[in-house]
Amino acid sequence: MTSNDTVPELLLQDEALRDGLQMESRIFSLEEKLHLYRMLRNAGIKRIQVGSFVHPRIVPQMADTDELIRTIGREDDCEVSALILNDKGLERALSCGVSHVSMSVSVSDTHSRKNARRPAAEALASMTALIREAMTAGLDIRAGLQCVFGCVYEGRIAESAVLNAAEKMIQSGAREINLADTTGMADPWSIRHLVAVFRREYPDVLISLHLHDTRGLGLANIFSGYESGVRSFDVCAGGLGGCPFVKGAAGNVPTEDAVNMFESLGVPTGIDLAALVEAVAFLENTLERTLPGRMRRVLANQKTCT
Amino acid sequence: MTSNDTVPELLLQDEALRDGLQMESRIFSLEEKLHLYRMLRNAGIKRIQVGSFVHPRIVPQMADTDELIRTIGREDDCEVSALILNDKGLERALSCGVSHVSMSVSVSDTHSRKNARRPAAEALASMTALIREAMTAGLDIRAGLQCVFGCVYEGRIAESAVLNAAEKMIQSGAREINLADTTGMADPWSIRHLVAVFRREYPDVLISLHLHDTRGLGLANIFSGYESGVRSFDVCAGGLGGCPFVKGAAGNVPTEDAVNMFESLGVPTGIDLAALVEAVAFLENTLERTLPGRMRRVLANQKTCT
Repeated sequence: MTSNDTVPELLLQDEALRDGLQMESRIFSLEEKLHLYRMLRNAGIKRIQVGSFVHPRIVPQMADTDELIRTIGREDDCEVSALILNDKGLERALSCGVSHVSMSVSVSDTHSRKNARRPAAEALASMTALIREAMTAGLDIRAGLQCVFGCVYEGRIAESAVLNAAEKMIQSGAREINLADTTGMADPWSIRHLVAVFRREYPDVLISLHLHDTRGLGLANIFSGYESGVRSFDVCAGGLGGCPFVKGAAGNVPTEDAVNMFESLGVPTGIDLAALVEAVAFLENTLERTLPGRMRRVLANQKTCT
Repeated sequence: MTSNDTVPELLLQDEALRDGLQMESRIFSLEEKLHLYRMLRNAGIKRIQVGSFVHPRIVPQMADTDELIRTIGREDDCEVSALILNDKGLERALSCGVSHVSMSVSVSDTHSRKNARRPAAEALASMTALIREAMTAGLDIRAGLQCVFGCVYEGRIAESAVLNAAEKMIQSGAREINLADTTGMADPWSIRHLVAVFRREYPDVLISLHLHDTRGLGLANIFSGYESGVRSFDVCAGGLGGCPFVKGAAGNVPTEDAVNMFESLGVPTGIDLAALVEAVAFLENTLERTLPGRMRRVLANQKTCT
């Protein structure tokens, strides 16, 4: 029995506060972030990535991540998480007391140079060292690999490059690898294939998926991942987001649409869809635009159906 | 070996000219429809539903369906199809010389009363008689059942009701049953289940799927249908459309996004994606709004990627 088999529950990690808001020109106040966090938590989301420890000059939207985490504090019913990309980030994470962090690098050299401003190999070497340090410091870490299903700059990424990077992260102590389709290039069969390879190669390592919906395949890919045994997926309320370094990239799969899919399949999510779409409504009202997620409008129209 | 097994090729039937345009307040001219038809045909679409024979007062957008079909004439590389809902429609179909027609009824009584203004049982009885008549007249017909995966008015539809309606259509001579998820309520497992039931019950009957994308599950459902052995799917350039009697219903799966999915899976579609998104561009420019399909923007952004 593998680690994947011993995790019966589905984990939908919402990333609207990080992967979503980091793309918005409108910077949300601490109060607005807290409000969104609480709406998501109250809807039943069990892990929320609330920000990233990046330089405030580069991503000002995330500047108050430390303060937000301090204000939220530790919660019993929801795990607060944040993204670490460098040693300064680890320092901030430890200082503000966040318990769960994501630490990821790109397996595409071009994407790594644009996004992390360093070659992929160099970024990986730094990150594996940082993972050791974070674990020694007692942090619950999730290692991540970006662009594993392809890259708009480099096309297909060699499986060996993905496995090599994963191997190094696992050697550093990582017990979960998050496979990210950063530019929405995965398809249900490439998901099935890579997940099977990982489950065979690393039966004791948890696999989670972070799937951008650029080509509309996000839900099909989550479905394929679920059927392949994955039980942990990143999603984003409203489908907010994208990637500043990949033009035209869409956000993650809308949390509410993933919840609807799983509930339709008969897989309990523990998430209250009606409460969740209220969080989406808050985002849409604040940003004054419609987000890609479908279920807010489906529920709104059901109310007025005659 | 069943009929499904002997059809190796994928058929993506575009319905933008019917299921799409019937919802638009802007009525397309004959010239515009011809232009769209030719763009779709030139992109490699092998069957195009160009209109429906409904009363011009009820659906004025489709009033020139007969003239459009006469103008197009018979084509070697693309099958022209239209929708028939009653005996007047059959008369018009025979008069204008269309060779392929869809003839469908709803299995949801409430939806049937709203959409066809008669109870489902009555609509089915008329339609089966009409199917016999159409076949006797030499038409290539496709029988269809709407709302088989659920109905916003009635919720889940009993499988027995679906099989009963299919049985009657098959007894009337139908050799293809189009299963329609009119309100986007199917999920990948309900697709798999119903397709398996049909293939077991009616091994000699072709199954095609008409899946609305209301809850964003269209591509996941097409994927599930494909893996279940279905090789014929209705799609709609741009994802145009909806259902006038189901508030909030979205259009069919965008043709360009289905093409991208199949090509990503390594399943050849014979469709030129770049040419296809030009047809989507024509629709978006004419309607002066962005349609739900993703691939037009993905291709546009790829061009400008640095």
